[in-house]
Amino acid sequence: MSLSEFSLIDDYIATSATSRADVHVGIGDDCAVVEVPPGKSLAISMDTLVAGRHFNEGVNAVSLGHKALAVNLSDLAAMGAEPAWATLSLTMPEADVRWIRDFMQGFFALADHFGVQLVGGDTTRGPLSITVQIHGFVDPGRMMRRDGAQPGDLIYVTGSLGDAGLALQLQQAGKLDMACHQHLLQRLDRPTPRISEAMQLVSIASSAIDLSDGLIADLGHIVQQSHCGAAIELQRLPCSPAVQAAIARSNRWNLPLSSGDDYELCFTVPAERQQQLQQLTATLDSPLTRIGVIEQQPGIRCVDAEGAVDDIESGYDHFN
Amino acid sequence: MSLSEFSLIDDYIATSATSRADVHVGIGDDCAVVEVPPGKSLAISMDTLVAGRHFNEGVNAVSLGHKALAVNLSDLAAMGAEPAWATLSLTMPEADVRWIRDFMQGFFALADHFGVQLVGGDTTRGPLSITVQIHGFVDPGRMMRRDGAQPGDLIYVTGSLGDAGLALQLQQAGKLDMACHQHLLQRLDRPTPRISEAMQLVSIASSAIDLSDGLIADLGHIVQQSHCGAAIELQRLPCSPAVQAAIARSNRWNLPLSSGDDYELCFTVPAERQQQLQQLTATLDSPLTRIGVIEQQPGIRCVDAEGAVDDIESGYDHFN
Repeated sequence: MSLSEFSLIDDYIATSATSRADVHVGIGDDCAVVEVPPGKSLAISMDTLVAGRHFNEGVNAVSLGHKALAVNLSDLAAMGAEPAWATLSLTMPEADVRWIRDFMQGFFALADHFGVQLVGGDTTRGPLSITVQIHGFVDPGRMMRRDGAQPGDLIYVTGSLGDAGLALQLQQAGKLDMACHQHLLQRLDRPTPRISEAMQLVSIASSAIDLSDGLIADLGHIVQQSHCGAAIELQRLPCSPAVQAAIARSNRWNLPLSSGDDYELCFTVPAERQQQLQQLTATLDSPLTRIGVIEQQPGIRCVDAEGAVDDIESGYDHFN
Repeated sequence: MSLSEFSLIDDYIATSATSRADVHVGIGDDCAVVEVPPGKSLAISMDTLVAGRHFNEGVNAVSLGHKALAVNLSDLAAMGAEPAWATLSLTMPEADVRWIRDFMQGFFALADHFGVQLVGGDTTRGPLSITVQIHGFVDPGRMMRRDGAQPGDLIYVTGSLGDAGLALQLQQAGKLDMACHQHLLQRLDRPTPRISEAMQLVSIASSAIDLSDGLIADLGHIVQQSHCGAAIELQRLPCSPAVQAAIARSNRWNLPLSSGDDYELCFTVPAERQQQLQQLTATLDSPLTRIGVIEQQPGIRCVDAEGAVDDIESGYDHFN
């Protein structure tokens, strides 16, 4: 059977359960045409996942569909934006119907959860690679940028750090045991974009970023663009028992500091808004942990339990 | 020298000459944040070009940068939208500085011509591939869709058909002679998106599409989505002398009918708006040619000089 591009699209991609009133033209014309609500600005972000680089060719297709959208939703979260529409470009070596069905199942499950409609994109033949663009709404005067941190602001992260990195380490060493590492693998393959947290933090945080490349690298963008520095207290870093054990074994903090793919939020809060933040904590899905403070002196310093300053390792860089 | 992803972006990608007042946040944060004008809807389209599939690995990088944006602008033209912003995802096997500089030069030259600002994207390492998303503005009640053609509407195309296909044929046969085929190669490598034509046609045309996959395939989308058919008069198809000669030699019409990559517009106009269209013709950059008529009977019929109906060949389909 020869499956044409168009029937592929018709059967598996144009089946978004979410149907939004602000979509005038969806999949099937030269452009999608959509409506931004009056008074709102449009936040957009595009991410590409390449086989062999960001994921293994044999990874579960449902998880991959989830992750391709999740990493983009995570960028919206970092800005405090409300998700609306996605576009998807799928490049595949062959038209593998089962794979596409599974991939779209993972994609749509997450899209529907956040009310996101897939409105367009492209399908081409070539080495496996996925590009997603996400679109959301922000109030022009009320968004979390990377350049808003001030000395004295306290630094927070959502969730826990290093789980995805540990899962990847175990996987690459052939030591991933599905019985006891399911939670870690879930963190690597099916990250939870912190959208609901971000929607509440947007009026409190002075800056934010999502942790895709590791804490040091990503917090590095905040301090660089805010023209300041940061001190991190290592003992405060929120880590799962498995990551805590790995740190104890290796006596190294690289997992929470420089492994990527956690897709938690790192954000800063002015001291005078601490109480506001405390009140929020109870209503959020994921815990918030204070991990350090913004300082005037450039660079990032990691302070251990004895007050000594640790060497830090840099994050993931695609071309190094 | 190890060139980091971030310095790559800083040096060559974040150098858009165009700087628009409606861009609140450009390259360098988790999302770009942009402003759609009041009363306008947002038209978006995403296209991916894969090395070895849509272009040869050794193609001129300046041309490729032009083409990657041009094919997306062509989708905006097909809708009658005014270009505004672009995002770009570049996947490259290595950080080749000269290549990126050339690519961005071609990209920005076309972007600046149409007042388009590059506001975000992604760079990753992997098999060479380029995804661009284009964003433009349309009046909600005034856009050219694929589903608006009616029986009796006349069918037009801009420019000429089959040049890009002939250039590709000659290239693949090793017969491309730069001295006498420069115009053809230009048509393949540096297509002109028909934006200015489209902005004027938007209030006259009942439907439109851009010709990326060949006339029969693309007009096929119009008649299918408009629930009608079409008759094409072969003798009317606008062809350059080189394509005319190729048709005479081969006695086949496949170049103007089913070769892709021309990026001309195909559109339909109700009979009562012919005069309006005539008045427009003098002001347009490219010629308009009437090539046929929309009919009630489904399918597309090609009528030759003697009135006989020709077999038609289907267009390009990525997964066949």
